[in-house]
Amino acid sequence: MKAAVFQGPGRIAWQDVPDPGIEDPADVIVRVDVVTICGTDLHILKGDVPEVTPGRILGHEAVGTVVEAGGDVRTVRPGDRVLISCISACGRCRFCRESRYGQCRGGGGWILGHLVDGTQAEYVRVPFADLSVHPLPESIAGSDAVLLADIFPTSYEVGVLNGAVRPADTVVVVGAGPIGLAAVATAGFYSPGRIVAVDLAESRLAAARALGADATVNADEGPEQLVADLTEGLGADVVMEAVGVPEAFEMCTRMVRPGGRVANIGVHGKPAALHLEDLWIKDVTITTGLVDTSSTPMLLRMMAAGRLPSAELITHRFELGEMEEAYEVFGRAAETGAVKVALGGPQHTVVSVPDAPAG
Amino acid sequence: MKAAVFQGPGRIAWQDVPDPGIEDPADVIVRVDVVTICGTDLHILKGDVPEVTPGRILGHEAVGTVVEAGGDVRTVRPGDRVLISCISACGRCRFCRESRYGQCRGGGGWILGHLVDGTQAEYVRVPFADLSVHPLPESIAGSDAVLLADIFPTSYEVGVLNGAVRPADTVVVVGAGPIGLAAVATAGFYSPGRIVAVDLAESRLAAARALGADATVNADEGPEQLVADLTEGLGADVVMEAVGVPEAFEMCTRMVRPGGRVANIGVHGKPAALHLEDLWIKDVTITTGLVDTSSTPMLLRMMAAGRLPSAELITHRFELGEMEEAYEVFGRAAETGAVKVALGGPQHTVVSVPDAPAG
Amino acid sequence: MKAAVFQGPGRIAWQDVPDPGIEDPADVIVRVDVVTICGTDLHILKGDVPEVTPGRILGHEAVGTVVEAGGDVRTVRPGDRVLISCISACGRCRFCRESRYGQCRGGGGWILGHLVDGTQAEYVRVPFADLSVHPLPESIAGSDAVLLADIFPTSYEVGVLNGAVRPADTVVVVGAGPIGLAAVATAGFYSPGRIVAVDLAESRLAAARALGADATVNADEGPEQLVADLTEGLGADVVMEAVGVPEAFEMCTRMVRPGGRVANIGVHGKPAALHLEDLWIKDVTITTGLVDTSSTPMLLRMMAAGRLPSAELITHRFELGEMEEAYEVFGRAAETGAVKVALGGPQHTVVSVPDAPAG
Amino acid sequence: MKAAVFQGPGRIAWQDVPDPGIEDPADVIVRVDVVTICGTDLHILKGDVPEVTPGRILGHEAVGTVVEAGGDVRTVRPGDRVLISCISACGRCRFCRESRYGQCRGGGGWILGHLVDGTQAEYVRVPFADLSVHPLPESIAGSDAVLLADIFPTSYEVGVLNGAVRPADTVVVVGAGPIGLAAVATAGFYSPGRIVAVDLAESRLAAARALGADATVNADEGPEQLVADLTEGLGADVVMEAVGVPEAFEMCTRMVRPGGRVANIGVHGKPAALHLEDLWIKDVTITTGLVDTSSTPMLLRMMAAGRLPSAELITHRFELGEMEEAYEVFGRAAETGAVKVALGGPQHTVVSVPDAPAG
Repeated sequence: MKAAVFQGPGRIAWQDVPDPGIEDPADVIVRVDVVTICGTDLHILKGDVPEVTPGRILGHEAVGTVVEAGGDVRTVRPGDRVLISCISACGRCRFCRESRYGQCRGGGGWILGHLVDGTQAEYVRVPFADLSVHPLPESIAGSDAVLLADIFPTSYEVGVLNGAVRPADTVVVVGAGPIGLAAVATAGFYSPGRIVAVDLAESRLAAARALGADATVNADEGPEQLVADLTEGLGADVVMEAVGVPEAFEMCTRMVRPGGRVANIGVHGKPAALHLEDLWIKDVTITTGLVDTSSTPMLLRMMAAGRLPSAELITHRFELGEMEEAYEVFGRAAETGAVKVALGGPQHTVVSVPDAPAG
Repeated sequence: MKAAVFQGPGRIAWQDVPDPGIEDPADVIVRVDVVTICGTDLHILKGDVPEVTPGRILGHEAVGTVVEAGGDVRTVRPGDRVLISCISACGRCRFCRESRYGQCRGGGGWILGHLVDGTQAEYVRVPFADLSVHPLPESIAGSDAVLLADIFPTSYEVGVLNGAVRPADTVVVVGAGPIGLAAVATAGFYSPGRIVAVDLAESRLAAARALGADATVNADEGPEQLVADLTEGLGADVVMEAVGVPEAFEMCTRMVRPGGRVANIGVHGKPAALHLEDLWIKDVTITTGLVDTSSTPMLLRMMAAGRLPSAELITHRFELGEMEEAYEVFGRAAETGAVKVALGGPQHTVVSVPDAPAG
Repeated sequence: MKAAVFQGPGRIAWQDVPDPGIEDPADVIVRVDVVTICGTDLHILKGDVPEVTPGRILGHEAVGTVVEAGGDVRTVRPGDRVLISCISACGRCRFCRESRYGQCRGGGGWILGHLVDGTQAEYVRVPFADLSVHPLPESIAGSDAVLLADIFPTSYEVGVLNGAVRPADTVVVVGAGPIGLAAVATAGFYSPGRIVAVDLAESRLAAARALGADATVNADEGPEQLVADLTEGLGADVVMEAVGVPEAFEMCTRMVRPGGRVANIGVHGKPAALHLEDLWIKDVTITTGLVDTSSTPMLLRMMAAGRLPSAELITHRFELGEMEEAYEVFGRAAETGAVKVALGGPQHTVVSVPDAPAG
Repeated sequence: MKAAVFQGPGRIAWQDVPDPGIEDPADVIVRVDVVTICGTDLHILKGDVPEVTPGRILGHEAVGTVVEAGGDVRTVRPGDRVLISCISACGRCRFCRESRYGQCRGGGGWILGHLVDGTQAEYVRVPFADLSVHPLPESIAGSDAVLLADIFPTSYEVGVLNGAVRPADTVVVVGAGPIGLAAVATAGFYSPGRIVAVDLAESRLAAARALGADATVNADEGPEQLVADLTEGLGADVVMEAVGVPEAFEMCTRMVRPGGRVANIGVHGKPAALHLEDLWIKDVTITTGLVDTSSTPMLLRMMAAGRLPSAELITHRFELGEMEEAYEVFGRAAETGAVKVALGGPQHTVVSVPDAPAG
């Protein structure tokens, strides 16, 4: 089959590789119908994630069709159309028992496209299938569902739930990339009084407004003052960091009101300054986290009911074989305006039982 | 009357001042029976708290007897023996309505010995008396009750409740000064599996053991390794910072397990480094806060029932007039072994209605 | 002044009575601009509430203008336009300190039109004004705001919050009178997957749809089967009882799924059967409660932001002097289709400082 | 092998049956070392549980040694000493994903000794072994650990957690049988101010005192008055029903304070009257539930740390072959004073790998 193989820093190639096969009775093999690229894949490509070694197939988000299932798999079978979660879960360790699948100690967690071969391929082996793929109703298009593999549960769990958004709250989302935009959309579940989105790109701020932001502000044009003005100087109830740089995080901690919450969603590469000389007295809660995807069944229900705004998120579509071009477009998001790219799509969503791969 | 008056950095004097009087119908005047000195008073004395200006009477913890009550006061009356809380509460602002009295926007919060004259005096005016003093049962000695003015509610609310201690948890308390020791004692309410106390002073570690710590470790002797060994390398469920320096806080964030909580109780004067490059993926919750004293009625019930260990906390006793000496002993805690000092005491706990002060 | 005076079972009269005056420094006198009638008032009229004695002025919901304030009142002053809450709060007792104002032990709770004279009058004395009236922004019309005096906080706190509605939930509201309709509207804050309203009156079911119900069913046409069908036989996540009869409550306990919640909002006059032989094993939570009105400030913000649907709720409008006619129309709701009636209105919303009443 | 076989109402026999074998790759076969009898077994014996048909081996609580494991089992292996939980969990259904194993829809839940053969036998097949048995540290004796199969997690989860016991609370436990006594012991984890136990048998009240009850009262001697006296007429914060009869449940609802919680643990056979005419206004939460055993790992840590009082609970010991006698003694608890009986014990706790059963 063909797959997107990491060649070492800076290089990825869509090339021939052996088909995957069942290695453990809890595995399934899934034919990939729709796949996307994550900001994390770009970090890997830069060489920022040393566990990912050359030869690894990247990708941890996809929609596909089960073509083969190991003997232990009980919840899906060949022919089932499924969402592949970015998180795999052994279901047995102490963290999985608390639904903290992202922290799985039994061989799961974020492994696809990281510690095992991933979804940017024609076929993918998914370990621990029962808790790691989700059957998809036919009513949900693949290019919508693929957003549930990572960005929606991440923004919802790590941003909205950790941030404990409540009705009438003032919520600030710093960073309107894919995760920040998904945070804007899912914060709406709790009817905040206003959502303020902050970014440098006007196109992203426009997308934020389309997804439910009540106010948007360019990061260069005084977001802290705006939040102060909107809240009588008190600060926001909830602030989410969806950038991943110290300056953004530090701004979040200045924008939050006494008694408020800062939910970090961004992937960070270096430390931030935590101004405890101001914050110690301020009743602030700061959270971090990797997604568990424990909310995915709920998000699927919301999407099936048409209550999860997603239309603005896929900005570019490609054939699966156009992987290298898709990486190129996504990698230059500032110029191309890419938010999420979808590879594959309608022509791939055949739901009859396909042939299993040869291997 | 006599009172401990801040004279500017480095100087405090027990001197004659005018008696306080009712200024607002919500005030009470309390004759001070037992008072103590807080670490914060030492910070003020050093000049670290610029809002405190020379001439201010210090102190925000005391037990006494009401001698006069303004016309609005409904819950206490002259003759009542009361605990004076370190936090005053207007009861009307949005924060008071949520029991976040420490963040009161209506003129309360931490004001005693800070923005208005405090408790290190023969008499003190307490604003917003109905929510700022607590009637005391006779069964509780003044030198026990005075610990409920600040250190017990602070350690319980900002440490134990924010840290969400649960049965069987591994809890680490970094810093075994008065607040850290009170955190050890009140963490016990939730039956953690083990409490580990960390400090540099062996005398404080001994006090921690007496108050319920299961293990103690000198900060110089590898507390991080000990916690790793006790938790199979995973880290502690809850870590409380009760020191107030960046190094201690940063150690706390290294000791906590994925999914765990770091509750900052320490008063900090400078920023700490928050290692988001490690923590972003770790599901950590970090809290800060000023005490609200909303737990004081519960803590009073626990103390009255004999369930709040406190015997090790008062290490030195003085007459009220020995204020300057008490400051001196408390200020050299490393040498004197002082944890909390109590001024006043049995001879002051007359409960008949006293004469009001002349003023 | 004129007021609606209870004359004993079955009789109410709009008659001359003395003007109210300040009796306690925490009181305010409010000129009533808009007032409404509650189902509870009808119960009183029937003689079902023995604490209400002849001569009592009824009513516990109103919008008005402060004309006089006692010396302790700090948050409003003459000329302020205010919402009068159905619950008064002393702010000092153990229940008020936990924001459980409905259970106030200090003289508050539901007292207006019950233990003291109420709001169906030209002027009303409101005790404990600081926590019992809410300043109103001009942007909110009186006939909207009056819905925040009782029905919105009651349905939200006792129904939606006690029921813990979550995104994607199936929520059933049994009874689509004023409280049930307000429960439909406020359940929407949490983005349930579907809201099902049950009632006997088609006009009320139509109102429920207008306020956000996704499905409605006549109580005679198999609501239990419908809920089973919608939930694959499992039952609803949250069921709210907003009728107040045993049969309705018992139906709620049959409709709830394992792990679900039944929130009783209805006012009951007799016991229901609790089928513990079925329920003991089912992980069900059942809640009851009187409103606290602790959510009123949040609801005011939602209404000011245009996020609280209310247009369908006021079905009939009267002049204040048409009180007896309004009672008559509201009392025959099955025939008249009355949901809430509003007395007074635009012509009363003058915001300049009015003259105080003579008394 | 020998097993306790239900013969139809009123009859149980310790008789020869075929050895169990692996039927599904998720199964384990466990040699039973210590087993006990539950009140539910007596209900079955009476014929009250119609799903249990003649020929069924009873029992859902045991400690034993794994002798064979199916191919999917990952967390235990032959030779491991394990606790067999009363609840089996598929780990894949929506309830198991929320740790509500008692409500498992995937073939688990309470099945042992109910829908499949149980633990009152020399060997037992345990389905879904990974989530249904727990490895035991050697330091825990089998006759202590067997109490963790059902009564401790049941009382803790369904009583103490559902009841939300908090420090300083007044907690009433109605019924001091095995479950009620375990509720007394585990309520202590949260340092309530006082625990009051109610029962008809003085021996059980004595056991309650030994396990931590501060006050005990005979059900015939005015428990409601005692609770009123202890709480200034307000009622208890938390009341647990551990009897299973309507009168006891109804008494619980009269004993609870406004804002309090009634946690039903009892197994009921008929409806109770729920006095909504009193309760609707009282802010009461009532919970029911089947145990999930999600707390078992925590309880195991508490027991290993010596923090789970259990010594009073096993009142009678038997050899495994004395099953019929044990049933007889346990069935006449009122006369024999039996709380829990343990069959098997030290001589069975060999931890070397045993031979698998022949079948």
